[in-house]
Amino acid sequence: MARIVQKYGGTSVANTERFMEVARRIKRYHDQGEQVVVVVSAMGGVTDRLIKLAAEVSPQTSEREMDMLLATGEQQSVALLAMALHGLGCPAISLTGAQAGIETDGVHSKARIRNISPERIEKYLGDGQVVIVAGFQGQTEDDMITTLGRGGSDLTAVALAAALEADLCQIYTDVDGVYTADPRIVPEARKIGTISHDEMLEMASLGAKVMQSRSVEFAKKFGVQLEVRSSLNQSPGTIITEETEAMEEVVIRGISADKNEAKLTVHEVPDRPGQAARLFGILARAAINVDMIIQTASRSGRADISFTVPKTELNTIRNKLAERIVEELGCERIAYDEDIAKVSLVGIGMRSHSGVAAEMFEALARVGINIQMISTSEIKISCVVAEEAADQAVRILHRTFGLDQEP
Amino acid sequence: MARIVQKYGGTSVANTERFMEVARRIKRYHDQGEQVVVVVSAMGGVTDRLIKLAAEVSPQTSEREMDMLLATGEQQSVALLAMALHGLGCPAISLTGAQAGIETDGVHSKARIRNISPERIEKYLGDGQVVIVAGFQGQTEDDMITTLGRGGSDLTAVALAAALEADLCQIYTDVDGVYTADPRIVPEARKIGTISHDEMLEMASLGAKVMQSRSVEFAKKFGVQLEVRSSLNQSPGTIITEETEAMEEVVIRGISADKNEAKLTVHEVPDRPGQAARLFGILARAAINVDMIIQTASRSGRADISFTVPKTELNTIRNKLAERIVEELGCERIAYDEDIAKVSLVGIGMRSHSGVAAEMFEALARVGINIQMISTSEIKISCVVAEEAADQAVRILHRTFGLDQEP
Repeated sequence: MARIVQKYGGTSVANTERFMEVARRIKRYHDQGEQVVVVVSAMGGVTDRLIKLAAEVSPQTSEREMDMLLATGEQQSVALLAMALHGLGCPAISLTGAQAGIETDGVHSKARIRNISPERIEKYLGDGQVVIVAGFQGQTEDDMITTLGRGGSDLTAVALAAALEADLCQIYTDVDGVYTADPRIVPEARKIGTISHDEMLEMASLGAKVMQSRSVEFAKKFGVQLEVRSSLNQSPGTIITEETEAMEEVVIRGISADKNEAKLTVHEVPDRPGQAARLFGILARAAINVDMIIQTASRSGRADISFTVPKTELNTIRNKLAERIVEELGCERIAYDEDIAKVSLVGIGMRSHSGVAAEMFEALARVGINIQMISTSEIKISCVVAEEAADQAVRILHRTFGLDQEP
Repeated sequence: MARIVQKYGGTSVANTERFMEVARRIKRYHDQGEQVVVVVSAMGGVTDRLIKLAAEVSPQTSEREMDMLLATGEQQSVALLAMALHGLGCPAISLTGAQAGIETDGVHSKARIRNISPERIEKYLGDGQVVIVAGFQGQTEDDMITTLGRGGSDLTAVALAAALEADLCQIYTDVDGVYTADPRIVPEARKIGTISHDEMLEMASLGAKVMQSRSVEFAKKFGVQLEVRSSLNQSPGTIITEETEAMEEVVIRGISADKNEAKLTVHEVPDRPGQAARLFGILARAAINVDMIIQTASRSGRADISFTVPKTELNTIRNKLAERIVEELGCERIAYDEDIAKVSLVGIGMRSHSGVAAEMFEALARVGINIQMISTSEIKISCVVAEEAADQAVRILHRTFGLDQEP
């Protein structure tokens, strides 16, 4: 008898038919004798409707009151799912985040889980019930309702799996699993059978938007084994698990492309100490997340600094910060390039294999793709290329590193 | 500085414009320095939509899960109302029934309030906040969400007013107050300024559907002063309060007509002991509420028994119980009459005035209205008449007892 936590997102419970499908799937696990805890999100569209209502009644939205409002979406889902299971003759009980013992801090709209008291869930599991818990929400010490922010339901599931020492935490979504590359770009991309938490983190943060990084980090920290799989079919998904030695035999696990960044170049920065600190201090104070940074060698006392930021931040920089940057740094001008993409190879096998970077650069050079920036970590190599060349780059690299072959 | 509990029903918060109107009204009280606690229902239509969703996912509806589902409607309302008040610059905080300290028994879908711990509300009132509480819901000792059944939000308001020792509990609805008779039937009907709890109970149970009897009884028991008034205008409503001696000077406070009952006559019941117990025992076991009962004097060892029940119960009796009644009582047959109405005079002044009944019968006789059944209590006289004669009866009695004149 295994203990499984399953998480279903908003698209998996978008309407009553989908609720019924989810219920039938849960029942199959329960019938096999598994202990099943289910975490469910608000029905697709419900949260957006509530946000619209809130905007209509008030220009100001108190985060405490938004949490009170939005938490109802998940509460409706858990009740409906329990009813759907009852309709199939499967014993089930629904719990709000608070009832499930999920205690958070008091930072409304992006609370952090502080503690989970799993006694009530344990009791119901012991009674043979499927326990359905509202995702995305918790309660402070002082009984106030909080929400966990984006990807919060995944986090609820992973945290419950840790607290309940579950054998597996299944994340049901609308994709089959994690692929060696985006199948829309590379038709011969394969579903990855097993991937380490670290590799998944690199894949996730690089644009493979299957799971939020926060949840994968949490899973890594508490040794929770994840499975990302589809709620639309019965195929096994991708297992995300602790690293084993055997995993290192695969050099490259996958390739991702991120087209959501823009490149900025600050030209002709007078070369004196503290210039980089000045530049990135201005960006940090504006809460802008900088990804890659490159500084050219100085020529005649002046250097160029290039960096990438999310495209969504470009206007803020252009309209509110650019003037100050030019002034404080005494530089020439700032150039903006939105038409870039970051293409990355990810794999823990890189640690023990040399020459991967050279092979990547060669492969791109062969087809005339120019590399604008390079950044490397222990298990990742990223190149910034022109956005129009990104798909070709991913396809070339996929073939070069043999990802179309079974490992 | 007064302490006021205000209750707004679903039609008062049917859309965002109505929310804004309610918020402006609350703010006026708060600006005058009153301490305001607000109880609010689900937005009009929300509860029905949730019930429909539940029916779609399952033929079985567990009452526990229905409570979990339906309680979200009120939770959404309190959050939205708090936001609307914030938008007007008025400090406000929303609470679920559980957070407000409303403890109930565990009878899901029609729980009874067991205890209210008003400490949290007192604290927020002390901070100068408007406290907004979700109506219709509470929590068991064991942290499970319950709902209070029909009219539950009124009950929440009255119970909070009692626990907080409020000066007044205002029930906002879509009518201006309690009238001497239904203004759609009697155009010259007047709004009653003050009415006793007992009179209101008789008026309410007789079809003046302004408030559920349960809430008025609760208010009577705990000495809560109520005001029923409209959320659509600024007119004062009807005060429902403890009885005073001055109130007895008005003989008849109001007239109500109830067209929702049907009359049944069990003909030729053999006259032996226990027949009435047998008949009403069968009805009681089927949970059918019997209102008026009349038994004719026995003729040649047989008597007729007539009684009234809600029209909605008629089919159950006809299809499921009639045969058994005829068999067990050895009676002839059962006659059904749906086309009846019960017309009632209500007033605590009746206690000290004689001749009211005679005057009522005479007034009806003068215009040729036949009285089919009569029943009296200390503060009420009811006559069953043909449904088609009911409106005329109400108009005649309204004039006869001078209710069109200021008292």
